[in-house]
Amino acid sequence: MKISPLQLERANYQPKLPGTFKGAFRLAEGKPAHSVADREEIRDQFPQTYGMPVVTFTEGGGSKEHGPVRVGVILSGGQAPGGHNVVAGIFDGIRKLHPDSRLYGFLGGPDGLIRHRYMEITAGYLEGFRNTGGFDIIGSGRTKLEEPEQFDKGLAILKELGIEALVIIGGDDSNTNACVLAEYYLTKGAGVRVIGCPKTIDGDLKNEMIETSFGFDTATKVYSELIGNIARDANSAKKYWHFIKLMGRSASHIGLECALQTQPNICLVSEEVAEKKQTLRDIVEYMAGVVAGRASRGLNFGVALVPEGLIEFIPEMNLLIRELNDLLVEGTATEEQFRKTTDEDERRELIASRLSAASAGVYRSLPEGIANQLTLDRDPHGNVQVSLIQTEVLLGEMVKKRLAEMKAAGLFNGKFSTQYHFFGYEGRCAAPSNFDADYCYSLGYTAAMLVGEGKTGYMASVRNLTKPAEAWKAGGVPVTMMMNMERRHGQLKPVIQKALVRLDGGPFRYFAEKRAEWAVETSFVYPGPIQYFGPPEVCDQTTLTLRLEQGEA
Amino acid sequence: MKISPLQLERANYQPKLPGTFKGAFRLAEGKPAHSVADREEIRDQFPQTYGMPVVTFTEGGGSKEHGPVRVGVILSGGQAPGGHNVVAGIFDGIRKLHPDSRLYGFLGGPDGLIRHRYMEITAGYLEGFRNTGGFDIIGSGRTKLEEPEQFDKGLAILKELGIEALVIIGGDDSNTNACVLAEYYLTKGAGVRVIGCPKTIDGDLKNEMIETSFGFDTATKVYSELIGNIARDANSAKKYWHFIKLMGRSASHIGLECALQTQPNICLVSEEVAEKKQTLRDIVEYMAGVVAGRASRGLNFGVALVPEGLIEFIPEMNLLIRELNDLLVEGTATEEQFRKTTDEDERRELIASRLSAASAGVYRSLPEGIANQLTLDRDPHGNVQVSLIQTEVLLGEMVKKRLAEMKAAGLFNGKFSTQYHFFGYEGRCAAPSNFDADYCYSLGYTAAMLVGEGKTGYMASVRNLTKPAEAWKAGGVPVTMMMNMERRHGQLKPVIQKALVRLDGGPFRYFAEKRAEWAVETSFVYPGPIQYFGPPEVCDQTTLTLRLEQGEA
Repeated sequence: MKISPLQLERANYQPKLPGTFKGAFRLAEGKPAHSVADREEIRDQFPQTYGMPVVTFTEGGGSKEHGPVRVGVILSGGQAPGGHNVVAGIFDGIRKLHPDSRLYGFLGGPDGLIRHRYMEITAGYLEGFRNTGGFDIIGSGRTKLEEPEQFDKGLAILKELGIEALVIIGGDDSNTNACVLAEYYLTKGAGVRVIGCPKTIDGDLKNEMIETSFGFDTATKVYSELIGNIARDANSAKKYWHFIKLMGRSASHIGLECALQTQPNICLVSEEVAEKKQTLRDIVEYMAGVVAGRASRGLNFGVALVPEGLIEFIPEMNLLIRELNDLLVEGTATEEQFRKTTDEDERRELIASRLSAASAGVYRSLPEGIANQLTLDRDPHGNVQVSLIQTEVLLGEMVKKRLAEMKAAGLFNGKFSTQYHFFGYEGRCAAPSNFDADYCYSLGYTAAMLVGEGKTGYMASVRNLTKPAEAWKAGGVPVTMMMNMERRHGQLKPVIQKALVRLDGGPFRYFAEKRAEWAVETSFVYPGPIQYFGPPEVCDQTTLTLRLEQGEA
Repeated sequence: MKISPLQLERANYQPKLPGTFKGAFRLAEGKPAHSVADREEIRDQFPQTYGMPVVTFTEGGGSKEHGPVRVGVILSGGQAPGGHNVVAGIFDGIRKLHPDSRLYGFLGGPDGLIRHRYMEITAGYLEGFRNTGGFDIIGSGRTKLEEPEQFDKGLAILKELGIEALVIIGGDDSNTNACVLAEYYLTKGAGVRVIGCPKTIDGDLKNEMIETSFGFDTATKVYSELIGNIARDANSAKKYWHFIKLMGRSASHIGLECALQTQPNICLVSEEVAEKKQTLRDIVEYMAGVVAGRASRGLNFGVALVPEGLIEFIPEMNLLIRELNDLLVEGTATEEQFRKTTDEDERRELIASRLSAASAGVYRSLPEGIANQLTLDRDPHGNVQVSLIQTEVLLGEMVKKRLAEMKAAGLFNGKFSTQYHFFGYEGRCAAPSNFDADYCYSLGYTAAMLVGEGKTGYMASVRNLTKPAEAWKAGGVPVTMMMNMERRHGQLKPVIQKALVRLDGGPFRYFAEKRAEWAVETSFVYPGPIQYFGPPEVCDQTTLTLRLEQGEA
């Protein structure tokens, strides 16, 4: 077998474009745009690309003559469903500008630009990748484009290939860097323009002008399918609590969207934990309360969603981790003594005795396995590897302990058995939903049209996304407009503001209103797998997050 | 939200039935059937139900008059996609026999029969469950119906409700017990008949007359979707080896089917390991060889599938586990000394010194975490909990160690980073594929028709499954025909023979022919999610296992 029957059929799908692109269109320019914050600092850093207007493609205008263009494309960072369709959109877009236009892909992410590893993306090569998941068309990578030396190396190959514009498909950091690159090439008079495209399944690259990043729709649909299947199992077997960890280091959009789709008994939201300054004990108390509440109705099963990044949003855990990082620096006496101690209890006490009183208390309250993870699994710099911490297991074990206390006090008379799951890789390379297939293709096509208009330092933008594609609005947003100054590695830097879950936003408010009911009742919804060929209500609905943000659900 | 858009749409799906049931049909009886082995012993145990003929529904015959029937139904054991459609098929079938027929569901599995917990399944109640996953319509449970006392308690409620036939939906054990019950009620002249239906996602309940158990098709499609997504991620990021454990304690059909669908680099098959008497070292050597082979081509990523039950199929591991079970019996001096020892190295040596030389060698070769699992996580009887052993991690860590040795010897010059996954609950309660929706409904309908014909001790059988449903052949198989004698808990018992993967069967032979190519090349196939509404090639294909067994792929 070469490709699956579904892939064979999906190869024929023609993604939809905003209606504007069907006939003649022209670029409408708005007023000069300012950054969301820190205007002066951002302007100082981006003298060339600050203050450009938001631009929108609108119907009308005469047809413009374009010469052939040569464009480069880079996939940057973690995979997100639909990346291949962005590439397809760019390809078809520049061919529309002129049939002799050519597209080059840099291999393995930004590294390919620096190390001059590339390929020409031909029509034939592209064919097999349309409407598929993954970034395997040219690969991706996590190298950051930050240094002038990298920019110059890149420029050499761009010049050699006659490339006049580069499209960088990436998350907030990659798009920030795309803008730095645009600024640099402008300052240098290099004659290479840079356009960004908003990618990340985490959903945290969005703002007034970017309604959602691509991949979020598909990834959350895959996770929701799985959560729904597990919830149905929980409700059939009626004997397990399933603790499910979901991707989302810096924001909980994924967990929240999945909660809206599947209506679990518990869904933790990191941003709420941080804003309400909840302790680990608070969280465990809440979860144990829900378990006990259901048990009192004879329901000894449930589903709890936990965002991957939770730990770092709990103030006291954050402190503990920082203290541990300082304590166990290689070469120190403490570290040496720690390494020599093989008795677990002794090792534990050794650590606790060197922590602040508050942190020692938290540390002593942790289950053994988690305490071990915090001290044993360290990265090459000696730091706690937060991403390896099994937050779902930590919570499960602490809830179990709390329930035992409650049982002794007559406050819990049920059973509590757990199953743990973590979903991440399952969704990042799924074939794009109809929405993401259309949205990504439209983003790529829009990027191509921005190239045709000679723009640089812009992010491709497609809006009005809860409406049918026909009514989508395409344009470009100056990347500087989304920036503010943030401290990174101890230094103030201009970066695109990350969009965290807003507690006053539509999605969270809807969730907060319903969660008490979902906690005690069994209100599970089973979304099932992504469908491509059925009725539009089933195949073409985008996320509840987006619909609630737009006030449409 | 009450139900998802997909569920709403799927509620309208009318499952297909074998063509025979469209017009008038009659029951054709074959010759008396014998058990697959141990004929005399089985006949002795089942004097009433042994030697009955295989029966087949065929076109023709006059329309028969039926009175209303009352039927009970039980869901037994682990969930499998399509169980609700079996219930729907029974319901529609007995209503076809007579519109006043009634269906009672026993709640929470066989326990509901014994404890008289039941509900009437009405047309209205059933409506919301058609074509959905899960067993939540009446719940399921793992109580085994084995004792005459249980049978008598069951009979009391069956009599009270006027039920003349019981349909038990379950795996090999449950169907064995269904037959024991049928025999018992016949012997007693109780006037209650018993029909079984073949359920299990593991796919190990099949034989000449039962082509596949229901649920296997859907579950393996869900797992294959996820494996395909992960494989695409591996092929995009090009930096991880994903070790994926799949359900299948006693047979590797799930892993094998998923391998046929996704073409991973490695798929272990427990039956092959046992038949070739492979050691843990053999397996690790094979896997490390594949990793090194790919690394020599610059491919430092891959996908390996591992069946859940592997450990018990490795002869030396099986021996080690038995020795540990004997060694760590509670109350013995060794166990006490073991419990007191907190130093890990000491504890390890204590255990090793009490094992046979062969087992001590294996035990010392295990990674620390796994050795701990083998000695610390024990069930209430003090036995090693084999199902908790993280086989995928065990193999990953041992392969890593072996690769380090190979690197030192100049035989490996790549990188090896792992990600681990275990898929089980994700697939057991998925909404049934078109195939399982049709197959389950047909099984239930066939069971109802067997009830109408006054049969007992039969399993509903629907065959010719690689053809369109129109051409499917419905009938019944005497359960005794599938039995042989096996040792269970030290006692010889009549049981339905489990169908393990046959190394001389079509599916394994195809796999064995291809695997060397799949190992070194990147031949991944990405099946994508189950589709319900598209072209038949996408929506209505059953498993490659079935098609290869029938010589059709």
